[in-house]
Amino acid sequence: MFFSKLFVPILKNNPTEAKIKSHQLMLRTGMIKQSSAGIYSWLPFGFKVMKKIEQIVREEQNNIGAQEILMPTIQSSEIWMESGRYQDYGEEMLRIKDRQDREMLYGPTNEELVTDIFRSSVKSYKSLPQLLYHIQWKFRDELRPRFGIMRCREFYMKDAYSFDLSDEEAQYSYNKFFISYLKTFKRLELSAIPMAADTGPIGGNLSHEFIILADTGESKIYTDKRIFDVNSDNIRIDKNSLLNLRNEYEKFYAVTDEKYNKNEFEKNVNKENRLNTKGIEVGHIFYFGDKYSKSMNASVDHKGKKEFVKMGSYGIGVSRLVGAIIEAKYDDKNGVMRWPLSVSPYDCVIIVSISKNDTSNLEKSVKLFELLKKNNIEAIIDDTDENFSSKIKKFNLIGIPYQLILGKNSESDKIEFRDVGKESNNYSIEKILEILKSKK
Amino acid sequence: MFFSKLFVPILKNNPTEAKIKSHQLMLRTGMIKQSSAGIYSWLPFGFKVMKKIEQIVREEQNNIGAQEILMPTIQSSEIWMESGRYQDYGEEMLRIKDRQDREMLYGPTNEELVTDIFRSSVKSYKSLPQLLYHIQWKFRDELRPRFGIMRCREFYMKDAYSFDLSDEEAQYSYNKFFISYLKTFKRLELSAIPMAADTGPIGGNLSHEFIILADTGESKIYTDKRIFDVNSDNIRIDKNSLLNLRNEYEKFYAVTDEKYNKNEFEKNVNKENRLNTKGIEVGHIFYFGDKYSKSMNASVDHKGKKEFVKMGSYGIGVSRLVGAIIEAKYDDKNGVMRWPLSVSPYDCVIIVSISKNDTSNLEKSVKLFELLKKNNIEAIIDDTDENFSSKIKKFNLIGIPYQLILGKNSESDKIEFRDVGKESNNYSIEKILEILKSKK
Repeated sequence: MFFSKLFVPILKNNPTEAKIKSHQLMLRTGMIKQSSAGIYSWLPFGFKVMKKIEQIVREEQNNIGAQEILMPTIQSSEIWMESGRYQDYGEEMLRIKDRQDREMLYGPTNEELVTDIFRSSVKSYKSLPQLLYHIQWKFRDELRPRFGIMRCREFYMKDAYSFDLSDEEAQYSYNKFFISYLKTFKRLELSAIPMAADTGPIGGNLSHEFIILADTGESKIYTDKRIFDVNSDNIRIDKNSLLNLRNEYEKFYAVTDEKYNKNEFEKNVNKENRLNTKGIEVGHIFYFGDKYSKSMNASVDHKGKKEFVKMGSYGIGVSRLVGAIIEAKYDDKNGVMRWPLSVSPYDCVIIVSISKNDTSNLEKSVKLFELLKKNNIEAIIDDTDENFSSKIKKFNLIGIPYQLILGKNSESDKIEFRDVGKESNNYSIEKILEILKSKK
Repeated sequence: MFFSKLFVPILKNNPTEAKIKSHQLMLRTGMIKQSSAGIYSWLPFGFKVMKKIEQIVREEQNNIGAQEILMPTIQSSEIWMESGRYQDYGEEMLRIKDRQDREMLYGPTNEELVTDIFRSSVKSYKSLPQLLYHIQWKFRDELRPRFGIMRCREFYMKDAYSFDLSDEEAQYSYNKFFISYLKTFKRLELSAIPMAADTGPIGGNLSHEFIILADTGESKIYTDKRIFDVNSDNIRIDKNSLLNLRNEYEKFYAVTDEKYNKNEFEKNVNKENRLNTKGIEVGHIFYFGDKYSKSMNASVDHKGKKEFVKMGSYGIGVSRLVGAIIEAKYDDKNGVMRWPLSVSPYDCVIIVSISKNDTSNLEKSVKLFELLKKNNIEAIIDDTDENFSSKIKKFNLIGIPYQLILGKNSESDKIEFRDVGKESNNYSIEKILEILKSKK
């Protein structure tokens, strides 16, 4: 209930080591703490935001019929030798020897492990399709970790994998994830655009990155602006609707760096529609057919014939999304962050002016808190003894979207109410409840 | 909705490698799959149970005012050198060199890391007490991992840490976790008894293990039977009530192996009350004062004086609890498992007899399913084409506590209803809803 009891170590100034605004804000508002190079602990506010993002990601996976499992962080090298990727993967893979001198590794991705699970469990085509996902910590031993949790070593990711009998069915699975990603990012109030992308070490020949625009992004993109107007609302989950949606997007040239071809870009996109900018990758989906099923012998019986299953994989960077939302929503010029209500650590903050000999304002805030709670609105009371303008400044950075302000002379029955960083209004508590409930 | 669509690879027989009943049942009912020695993947049913246990553990931590954070799995060796435990810890610590040749490790416990977080964030005694917890994967490189997830290498644990100014305050924090553990295990329908225990590599001189009785347990215990009758219901969270509760327990001799003293046992416990048996450790709490705060210089300012904080730590094995509940609840003689409703993968199963040319039973089950869903009861329909008695046998093992049975000639408006493994009754659907709602 009281901010003073929370473990939220606020910094007075931007830490000098942080070069981009998400890193600055997360350190400054006590969301994370670095524990070693590229490795972070999540403190209560950062943790709450990440967990809410995770839950939205989970719900949208469940909505397309994907089932949640959990694979371990530490894997045996043996399955990576089967697929042939053990040598290929390079130094970003954290390789480990256990006490028996067995070669192990901290999973950077899970195609091998999930293929191993599939092949030992599923025997018949009748059990297809299977969509499996998990949300787990991963490790990539970056040479130069930087930008806080945006390019770190230990990170939290949702990985999904699809198993189908035919290419056509597999495309349908691919498209289910395509729409579920659009829905996920929309619920996070991000405008993420699918762009044709390189498949890299995952393999295959079909891939989309989901990119949000940001100056600090590390992905270069080349696109027809009109792709931002494609409407993905109210799409039914059936083969044709999803195919049509994919076609709607693919009408427009939209690629990442590795796929960029100057001639094609200029041929396909009128000058006034060309956009060449930077973005942040928040999701990446791949279709790679039988690349792993063949090398690892994952097949099903199809009416007496052995068929290698067709697979795709689908990733969302859950911890990275915390930073990506800040990059998209933080106005660092004016010192104002605004979390989407769906992932904010609290729905609203009650900022109280406190004087030493008068506790009436604090009592008023506790009553407000109880009333909000009764209406399922999660609030926090700033009961610290900082001066009032520091409190406002601090909560503008913390980014809880709604502020209820009990100033020095707040005696009327109206309460100052503010959407963070905007003009405030004096409203009755009934009106405030009405507004907050309508936003939830 | 349909069991046939779920990824639940059921085995026909007990796998020979499994020696204890939790390991057997978890493999047999497709809850887990071993990925390498002592390392497991969690498949949908196992995952669901573990997540529900995690949520109960979390709620009871929040109820005593502990705040959730998340520390990474990979730690730097530097903080372990500060505390002096880096060399001590032995071969169970998974030691790792990263690509820069830095010495890292997979955290087996987090006293050092949480002390590092505390010392950089908290400066004044006014911010005390602080109770922080996290739920994270840990690794102990067991020489001989065995018994499935009961003694494995990668495991899921809740760790909490308390920080206080004085010994007296720290005892109060210790007692808060003491009661929260009793409540947690009660919600899991486990009768776990706190027993005086050795502190081992954690250190300090006060410690309790929470033990549930089980023949397959690896902990030997010596106790006065009457300790099972101590009532911990309706205890208020204040200093005196908690102290009294601790005293109630400590009236009775109850120790683990390392603390056992034959003379004391026989002196303090009448012959008829002596119990010498085996149990499973499901929780372990420690008080170790300034052991880490002194060596790592974690102090607060107390009215101008520097004071090292007094710390305790508090662990619950979340993944291990899945196995512990099975050890406590699985009647392997009769092939009947019964999950507590609070952690069961589903609230009830609708077992349907299906004939090839008649889909009426299946349609009936779908209507039932929808009705249950409307009443917030989560059901699953067994729509497989196995014969009826195999279905019953299978679901007796899976352990969903309530079965609704639509047999061949189910034409009346009554439905066969069964608490798994017990006698069935024919009830109206209204009556069944009433029963299920009363259990939730």
